Amino acid sequence: MSTDADTTTDRLAALERRLQALEDEREITHLVAGYGPLVDAGAAEDVAALWTEDGVYDVDEAFLDGGDAIRAMVTSSGHQKWIERGCAHVLGPARVTVDGDEAVAVCHSLMVVHGEQGFRVRRATANHFQLRRTPAGWRVTTRTSRVLDGRPESPALLGAGARGERP
Amino acid sequence: MSTDADTTTDRLAALERRLQALEDEREITHLVAGYGPLVDAGAAEDVAALWTEDGVYDVDEAFLDGGDAIRAMVTSSGHQKWIERGCAHVLGPARVTVDGDEAVAVCHSLMVVHGEQGFRVRRATANHFQLRRTPAGWRVTTRTSRVLDGRPESPALLGAGARGERP
Amino acid sequence: MSTDADTTTDRLAALERRLQALEDEREITHLVAGYGPLVDAGAAEDVAALWTEDGVYDVDEAFLDGGDAIRAMVTSSGHQKWIERGCAHVLGPARVTVDGDEAVAVCHSLMVVHGEQGFRVRRATANHFQLRRTPAGWRVTTRTSRVLDGRPESPALLGAGARGERP
Repeated sequence: MSTDADTTTDRLAALERRLQALEDEREITHLVAGYGPLVDAGAAEDVAALWTEDGVYDVDEAFLDGGDAIRAMVTSSGHQKWIERGCAHVLGPARVTVDGDEAVAVCHSLMVVHGEQGFRVRRATANHFQLRRTPAGWRVTTRTSRVLDGRPESPALLGAGARGERP
Repeated sequence: MSTDADTTTDRLAALERRLQALEDEREITHLVAGYGPLVDAGAAEDVAALWTEDGVYDVDEAFLDGGDAIRAMVTSSGHQKWIERGCAHVLGPARVTVDGDEAVAVCHSLMVVHGEQGFRVRRATANHFQLRRTPAGWRVTTRTSRVLDGRPESPALLGAGARGERP
Repeated sequence: MSTDADTTTDRLAALERRLQALEDEREITHLVAGYGPLVDAGAAEDVAALWTEDGVYDVDEAFLDGGDAIRAMVTSSGHQKWIERGCAHVLGPARVTVDGDEAVAVCHSLMVVHGEQGFRVRRATANHFQLRRTPAGWRVTTRTSRVLDGRPESPALLGAGARGERP
């Protein structure tokens, strides 16, 4: 029986390890897919909760250092005006690379805004996420976003993110 | 042996439960990701089959109550004209929250249409899906879609959907 | 004990089979989600590595037959100019259908480009992927992409892809 039991134990352990890998990636995908809907809903607390409380959102238009700064961005009159006129922060599907308790994700985003002449694409952006497993689950530690207007750091973010590397 | 057997049984049951959760979410993601390609293909039966037969597609431009109404939308001259001129209903990645045999999903969508001056974004929309596990698999029971033009119900749909709540 | 052992073995086998199905789909989703970031990064080797070395990228603007042709597209002055001015190849979430060692995936894509008047959607495209399990993992064997400008093959690609069929 010992061989069978060992085999069973090994197979269980392998299944648990593989399942954990899928669950990690699913949780990160779920986290990243929350940003657009939550920020366009003006849900400041929920947006900030995607990050660790000392997490950073480094975007070319602003450097947001910690939960207070992220919440303040969402509640700012600038952001509220986008919501009032109509806007969509559409993130593409994240490509996730997990390495133990750290992970990297990458995706494009389009900011589509509504105005008197209908909708237009205001920005197309490269997004690089660094994430960490915390006791409360996966959280973003640093999100780096740069507009794809020809500046060289934006393609570099996409390449690093797609390969699971830091910026 | 009884302790080992119990442990094995417990571990198997835990794996089966966790795997089922991933499979549920994957099936819902697959379902929602079918809408855009199928509606742009004009595949009326396939589009309607994403919903229960008494399912509702409640969009600001139309209230479609049941499979016949959904099929009629796809085969309508209005929709067929969009296809003939060229159009893309691009849904973002769905954020899914499963609760037993019910689920909520949320995503943005962009309707991009082709015309004499090339492509333009005709609509950016908030999409909230309620889904139910049926004997045939997960199906949409109610999809509520509102254009993101500043009307307050659209951000509210995004927020509720991202939190796994009903509208 | 033999009944319990049989049951355990059967449950392990079922779990392994179901987990493999999720892993296959996850790997294909990961592969497809890499295209946009990698092509906008100008990462010619990484882009080509999404395909088998004899894989085909059949797009209305070009017929790329094998890894050398795909690498040459990425390093071409035409593509490099898009990157220099700013561009985003945003693919929607792939709907994947696996059948043994072959698979089909479908998604929309938007090519958003930057210019003097800001961003605009240059193309909305139907993308149909055929994939194969290789010793090195899943790879694209043929990607067929057609612009959604009203030509009938584009909706046909979306419909076939969403149903898991070949074009």
